[in-house]
Amino acid sequence: MKAFIEYIAAELEMEDPKSEYPNICAGTDRYAMYKVGPVLSVSHGMGIPSIAIMLHELIKLLYHAQCKDVTIIRIGTSGGIGLEPGTVVVTKQSVDATFQPKFEQVILGKTVVRNTDLDQNLAEELLQCSKELDQFETVIGNTMCTLDFYEGQARLDGAFCSYSEKDKQDYLIKAREAGVCNIEMESSVFSAMCKLSGLRAAVVCVTLLDRLKGDQLMSSHEVLNSFQKRPQILVGCFIKKQLMAKAVTS
Amino acid sequence: MKAFIEYIAAELEMEDPKSEYPNICAGTDRYAMYKVGPVLSVSHGMGIPSIAIMLHELIKLLYHAQCKDVTIIRIGTSGGIGLEPGTVVVTKQSVDATFQPKFEQVILGKTVVRNTDLDQNLAEELLQCSKELDQFETVIGNTMCTLDFYEGQARLDGAFCSYSEKDKQDYLIKAREAGVCNIEMESSVFSAMCKLSGLRAAVVCVTLLDRLKGDQLMSSHEVLNSFQKRPQILVGCFIKKQLMAKAVTS
Repeated sequence: MKAFIEYIAAELEMEDPKSEYPNICAGTDRYAMYKVGPVLSVSHGMGIPSIAIMLHELIKLLYHAQCKDVTIIRIGTSGGIGLEPGTVVVTKQSVDATFQPKFEQVILGKTVVRNTDLDQNLAEELLQCSKELDQFETVIGNTMCTLDFYEGQARLDGAFCSYSEKDKQDYLIKAREAGVCNIEMESSVFSAMCKLSGLRAAVVCVTLLDRLKGDQLMSSHEVLNSFQKRPQILVGCFIKKQLMAKAVTS
Repeated sequence: MKAFIEYIAAELEMEDPKSEYPNICAGTDRYAMYKVGPVLSVSHGMGIPSIAIMLHELIKLLYHAQCKDVTIIRIGTSGGIGLEPGTVVVTKQSVDATFQPKFEQVILGKTVVRNTDLDQNLAEELLQCSKELDQFETVIGNTMCTLDFYEGQARLDGAFCSYSEKDKQDYLIKAREAGVCNIEMESSVFSAMCKLSGLRAAVVCVTLLDRLKGDQLMSSHEVLNSFQKRPQILVGCFIKKQLMAKAVTS
């Protein structure tokens, strides 16, 4: 998140050479938060419960700070299905492990089903930014959000595995047929909570590997690092365009 | 985790005044791991998905390192139900949000139910350590493990809340009647994965507040810090006893 805020500061020409961009949440080791101009960059840990805690607290913060017209974008990494590693996926719908676009929230022991729709105009604007950048492939597609990285994503290399390579392939191919382009672990609750709060939201994740071809990362550290910068570059371009448009109209 | 390994090093008289106890997982910012003598201390992030990833990788590590007779104990904090804040709970059974002792793992889109039993002898040994220490109250009871900190634990102070104070109280009282002493977010998958792997496991969490009386921490930072040390002190005492018994028999 610090790398992103440094990148954004440079892009927006808001760099302060003396600034070290302090972690605003330094009092806790649970999250880190950085700010430059109107941009806030927050870490969220791994998985639905971790990002949900952060979002509850961030949404309260935005409310008390009286922030208006907030756009919130999750950036991160994911496993791709049938895509060249390094492809960036802008999420159309976040789907569960049965490919349904829903998030099940347990409240007082009862399951409540929430919608995981994201802002389609925002997704299209992000895709447009990628076209203008012309640096890497970007697609719009469904993102499967799972509670588990190993068994939950049909990996064969966890501590336990009760299925075969064929079972794995069959499952991932079914996912692809349902429009799933990538798999990660936070988009469903992110989409659901942003929708409930009326926040304009998007999910932009780079794929680090093609899960149809394996479970482990085969690219070099250098290549993986360059892949991880792609969502930052794409979202950086979008933020810059938004702020320039705002400057013109205001 | 570093504080714990420093504490254990002192307890076991294995301190190296020059040692800084390096983070063995320094290559990633996802987890931190420290080691002194036969004791490994690992962070796990927040929530079931985060601890599950760590456990898959730790279980593989223990297997390849040919570790034998491993005991694994989760230490942490929790919300208590009807207990004086600062009470330590050693988990008897980890139960879900409907108070059932089970963990639902989704594999290839299908739900598999796993057992969350913990080692009852180990729990009794830990309780015995607390009696010998005689520094704070410790009880054995059920621990409710939820996927969400706010709505999932009937808190009234999240970004969303669709229920009343009375609904919350009714739910927490039902939980208490089902033997639930405390609520946290990792014990179910921890219990299930340890049981599947044949690892002797326990969960030891201090309660930071009584959820029947409120949702926010009311104790001072100083008091909360002292509460957070209690699971460390209890598990430190247990480790010391185990190693002394081993030294006598070997």
